[in-house]
Formats: sequence, C-alpha cells, structure tokens
Amino acid sequence: MTPVEPSAPSPIPPGPVNLYVCVTCRLSADEEVRSGRLLHDTLVAAQQRHAAQDVTIVPTECLSNCNRACSVAVAGPGRWSYVYGGLAPEQADEILSGAARYAATTDGLVPWRERPEILRKGVVARIPPLPAATQEP
Amino acid sequence: MTPVEPSAPSPIPPGPVNLYVCVTCRLSADEEVRSGRLLHDTLVAAQQRHAAQDVTIVPTECLSNCNRACSVAVAGPGRWSYVYGGLAPEQADEILSGAARYAATTDGLVPWRERPEILRKGVVARIPPLPAATQEP
Repeated sequence: MTPVEPSAPSPIPPGPVNLYVCVTCRLSADEEVRSGRLLHDTLVAAQQRHAAQDVTIVPTECLSNCNRACSVAVAGPGRWSYVYGGLAPEQADEILSGAARYAATTDGLVPWRERPEILRKGVVARIPPLPAATQEP
Repeated sequence: MTPVEPSAPSPIPPGPVNLYVCVTCRLSADEEVRSGRLLHDTLVAAQQRHAAQDVTIVPTECLSNCNRACSVAVAGPGRWSYVYGGLAPEQADEILSGAARYAATTDGLVPWRERPEILRKGVVARIPPLPAATQEP
C-alpha cells in the first residue's frame, strides 16, 4: 500500500496590496534628500527589477512613526495592516520581498519564520482587517 | 444691510468605526488580570454610560505594540487608521471621547487641538485609508 503523502497546501490566491512609504522620514536633520524619499525611490527601482506586480508602492507624507525612521506600512483588503520602522534605503530588496510575501496571503499574517529579519525586528504595530473585525459584536 | 454671517461648516456625517483594544497588553508581569483586559472592560462600561453608538469596541489579541502597553487602534471605512500606546485603564473616558471624535470625521483626521492629550502623546503610527490610497499610481 502506498503511503499517503500529506496533501499540498491549497495555493493562496495572491492579491494587490499597498506598500506605504513615508517620504518625510529622515535619519538626520541635515539630509539634502530625505532618507524616506530615497527609500521610496529605491523601492520603486527594486520593484521594476523584480516585477512585484502585486505590490503598489504609495508615497505617503508621515506615518506618525517619526521616532523610528524610516517607516513603511503594508495594507490590503481583508488583511491585517502592519507598520514597520527603523528601516534604511539599502534595505529596499528585503522590504519588497516582505511585502510580496504579505501580498501572497489572504489575511496579511505571514508566518514568523518567513518574514525578513528587518521586518521581524522593525514591527511597530498592526491593526486587524476591517471586514473581519466588524463581524464581531 | 445685515452683515453676512460666516456659513456654518457642513455637518460631517458620522460613521461607525472600530476601536480595537489589545487585551493581551500588560503593565507588569504579575498582573492577575491583564491591564489590556481591564482597559477593554472599562471602555465597554464607559461606552454604555456615554451611549457612544458610532464606536464598536473590539477586543484584540496583540496589536504588536507590546513595548508601549496599553494599546488601542481606531479604524473605519475610508479613514486613516491610528494606533496609540502608553495608555491605562483609568483613561477609558478620554480614549472613548477621542474615538467618538474620530467617528465624526469622514477621513479619520481629527484636528490636533481636538484630540485628547493622551492620544496626542500616545500616537504610535497611522496608516492611510485603503480606498484613497489605491487611487494613486
């Protein structure tokens, strides 16, 4: 009798998500170009290289996380939203990889071991998805 | 000739919003009942007193803001979401007042001077509303 193989997990339908990048963040007061803007531009270039089509990069003026610049947030319909801080422009590839993994979930909950190191360390807060939350009393 | 009175601002249609309360937050390791749970229960009692019907209080397990307990977040359709930290159960009335003011906006942006002091000091992060953001390229 052939041993039963564990069934493959159902494929997760990917979906479009937003990666908000705070373009007003700065790492020092005398920056000619703010680090947040550099991070945004580096992310856009990385996205073009990797063709991460399920992630929309959205420049945003202030995520109110000024003490832990640079900051980004990910959000998408039906998903938990996350805010991350303590990031730098040279981490664009890792951030984009994390956002793509987030886009591949249906609820925004990426298993801990699959999160890039910088996002594990840099999590600032998360917010439940609206649809699921409003079902509660 | 009668002087022209400045026209009254258009009334803002209030809407239902969610007030997420982290019930796993604690202010010390040896709490019999976690401060986050106490904050939740105090908020529910305050809501009953004030009849703040536009605010739905949602107990939530971890807003990933553990270093700044207690934590709450507000979110609603079409609104910026906010996360707040450094709160305590005895501040339930002020928190609820802030959430009600938030519910009275259409975009989640409460003028700075109208925000309760504890929410001005306690803002941890904010995230843009999904609908507006997805309109951007």
